[in-house]
Amino acid sequence: MAFGWIDEQARARGRAGLVRTLRPRPADSPLLDLASNDYLGLARHPEVTEGAAEAARRWGGGATGSRLVTGTTELHDELERELAAFCGFEAALVFSSGYAANLAAITALAPHGSLIVSDAGNHASLIDGCRLARGTTQVVGHADPEAVRKALETGGGPAVVVSDTVFSVDGDAAPLSELAQVCREFGAGLVVDDAHGLGVLGDGGRGAPYAAGLAGAPHAEYPEYPEDIVVTVTLSKSLGSQGGAVLGPARVIDHLVNAARTFIFDTGLAPAATGAALAALRLLRREPERAARAREVAAELHARLTASGLEAVRPDAAVVSVRAPSPERAVRWAADCRTAGLAVGCFRPPSVPDGISRLRLTARADLTGGQLDRAVRVIGETRP
Amino acid sequence: MAFGWIDEQARARGRAGLVRTLRPRPADSPLLDLASNDYLGLARHPEVTEGAAEAARRWGGGATGSRLVTGTTELHDELERELAAFCGFEAALVFSSGYAANLAAITALAPHGSLIVSDAGNHASLIDGCRLARGTTQVVGHADPEAVRKALETGGGPAVVVSDTVFSVDGDAAPLSELAQVCREFGAGLVVDDAHGLGVLGDGGRGAPYAAGLAGAPHAEYPEYPEDIVVTVTLSKSLGSQGGAVLGPARVIDHLVNAARTFIFDTGLAPAATGAALAALRLLRREPERAARAREVAAELHARLTASGLEAVRPDAAVVSVRAPSPERAVRWAADCRTAGLAVGCFRPPSVPDGISRLRLTARADLTGGQLDRAVRVIGETRP
Ligand SMILES: Cc1ncc(COP(=O)(O)O)c(C=O)c1O
Ligand SMILES: Cc1ncc(COP(=O)(O)O)c(C=O)c1O
Repeated sequence: MAFGWIDEQARARGRAGLVRTLRPRPADSPLLDLASNDYLGLARHPEVTEGAAEAARRWGGGATGSRLVTGTTELHDELERELAAFCGFEAALVFSSGYAANLAAITALAPHGSLIVSDAGNHASLIDGCRLARGTTQVVGHADPEAVRKALETGGGPAVVVSDTVFSVDGDAAPLSELAQVCREFGAGLVVDDAHGLGVLGDGGRGAPYAAGLAGAPHAEYPEYPEDIVVTVTLSKSLGSQGGAVLGPARVIDHLVNAARTFIFDTGLAPAATGAALAALRLLRREPERAARAREVAAELHARLTASGLEAVRPDAAVVSVRAPSPERAVRWAADCRTAGLAVGCFRPPSVPDGISRLRLTARADLTGGQLDRAVRVIGETRP
Repeated sequence: MAFGWIDEQARARGRAGLVRTLRPRPADSPLLDLASNDYLGLARHPEVTEGAAEAARRWGGGATGSRLVTGTTELHDELERELAAFCGFEAALVFSSGYAANLAAITALAPHGSLIVSDAGNHASLIDGCRLARGTTQVVGHADPEAVRKALETGGGPAVVVSDTVFSVDGDAAPLSELAQVCREFGAGLVVDDAHGLGVLGDGGRGAPYAAGLAGAPHAEYPEYPEDIVVTVTLSKSLGSQGGAVLGPARVIDHLVNAARTFIFDTGLAPAATGAALAALRLLRREPERAARAREVAAELHARLTASGLEAVRPDAAVVSVRAPSPERAVRWAADCRTAGLAVGCFRPPSVPDGISRLRLTARADLTGGQLDRAVRVIGETRP
């Protein structure tokens, strides 16, 4: 029978306790949310949801075509200009998802004959980008600029170094300045995914590249935008919407428009998502303290979990990762938190390459002191 | 310099007249639209845009996480159930785009050691799915069940046959019944992309598989849902929104939940897009004549263009493709139409694998007789 082999896989998953199931949530979920990536608490902010509603009414339910045909509106253009200016890049290009943006950036910038140097901890979408690209991928140790240097020494043609800025599982940061330095030595391009940095790191949430001094409007000391750094972001986390974008030199963005298959052959981002992201961006510009607040909440959460004897990774952004002794106990722990009214993320094999199971907590900027107290108490009381 | 090689590519594109640029449209564009994929004219229908607005207000600007973490809402669940029932499949799974749905279906259903038989005219997202999958791809001639049979004869392990139901460039249909027949002979799975069939083909727009008798609620003669057919659809064309879905047996859908990277590692579809698609689906159920009307408009458009001496492909759905003598003249033709107030699609190398340039017209169900007259007149008057 066709697809017969999937039943054996399903049974194996069942035996290993690794079955994933969908749990639809109601609109008024009573759970305290430390599981989403809504870092700034903007997904349900009235300005953001009104931005979505207004855009749908004005522009329609969908973009109606590829952005090269009918799918580019003035609203997309506005978002691109404001996003590029905010993050400190010359130009931006919006995609239907962060996943699609990553596939686009890597496949279009790593042609046949090129070398891709990819961090072992990179997100699945970057890994898939490497797999799809025509270049040859060399995976290097996690957050290790010396390993990147060694890999670049082996290459002859064009090269790109690919890394998350903040790794999605443990919330640790990449050594961006060092990576940029090594790339410049070798004339390699640097492609970094700031999905978990935008809105949290850098002045007012301008992102990790900005925080590392790798982005920003040209000024006396750096009279030009960086020419060798390309950043991907998602609109689905701090900006509370859906979609993704690539930021970089205008010539790279033009190249993507002409060469990136997930841009050319995909329907444009829906107006509602575009409008929601634009509203969130404007709100963040007006209330830049939200970014710092997310970092403070993360530091506080980490300090208190550590003080209670749990093993948590020191957060570089707004993700706090707590070790669990085994996949089964991680699952039970998360379920017990849930029963106690707290939603936490649970990462375990096969979605963590290092095989370590953990709870993944997100420190939303809008968590109150009381909510933090409750979260720390529940996590402590349910610990395995 | 990093990314130096892209400048040479840009110059080559310039010399060949193949530079693509984005043209942001205003909300009240005066152009008559025969370029979008809004086949039923629903993208701007007030029920659809209200569906988006209402969902954003009730559920937020974004899904806030992977559908396995916080990103599944009761709204997603509702859309999945109604879409599966409408198209005649046991279960459905919603993705952030049709592109992501295609990557998921193929990568998850074509493991290492399997054979993928892929039609030479397949959409880019299916091709990328084949490239990403661990199985081995064999590309076969366009719409050729005998070629599929020969390819399947060479395989030993699991096999899937992958095809668009309606090909996006020329609008011609795949020989679905024959493909299903060949697949059954060999115990192969059939994965078809109904992006351009949903809403247009089949009783009330239930899609090409339904039209071919390959889908539908179990009844006396076929007491079970088909076990060996998986269909992908997009929410971004007839349903006027954004997103995609995979439809098929519940066990296949469970497998995708557990194995498809573009499902597991991607943020859920935004509530607004989910709500817009759901509103469009309900509208289509209430007004099933919209599907037939799209087909009638396409037939009428084709007949009149052919009568005026143009070479147009007989439409199997709502896409009408008209041959142009060269890429340059196709571009000029489309630009002249535009100047005369008519938006048409223009497909040319490298986005058409066969090297043939054409205008691509879409026959919206809501085009009036007067608009059709105008479109035919402009296309005729501007012909190269
Ligand atoms: C680091 C990283 N990059 C990219 C993505 C994909 O972005 P999106 O969900 O917007 O497609 C995610 C998660 O969703 C992520 O964690
Ligand atoms: C045949 C086909 N499949 C899939 C897609 C991708 O769907 P989406 O744009 O919703 O990502 C498209 C076009 O966009 C298409 O034409």
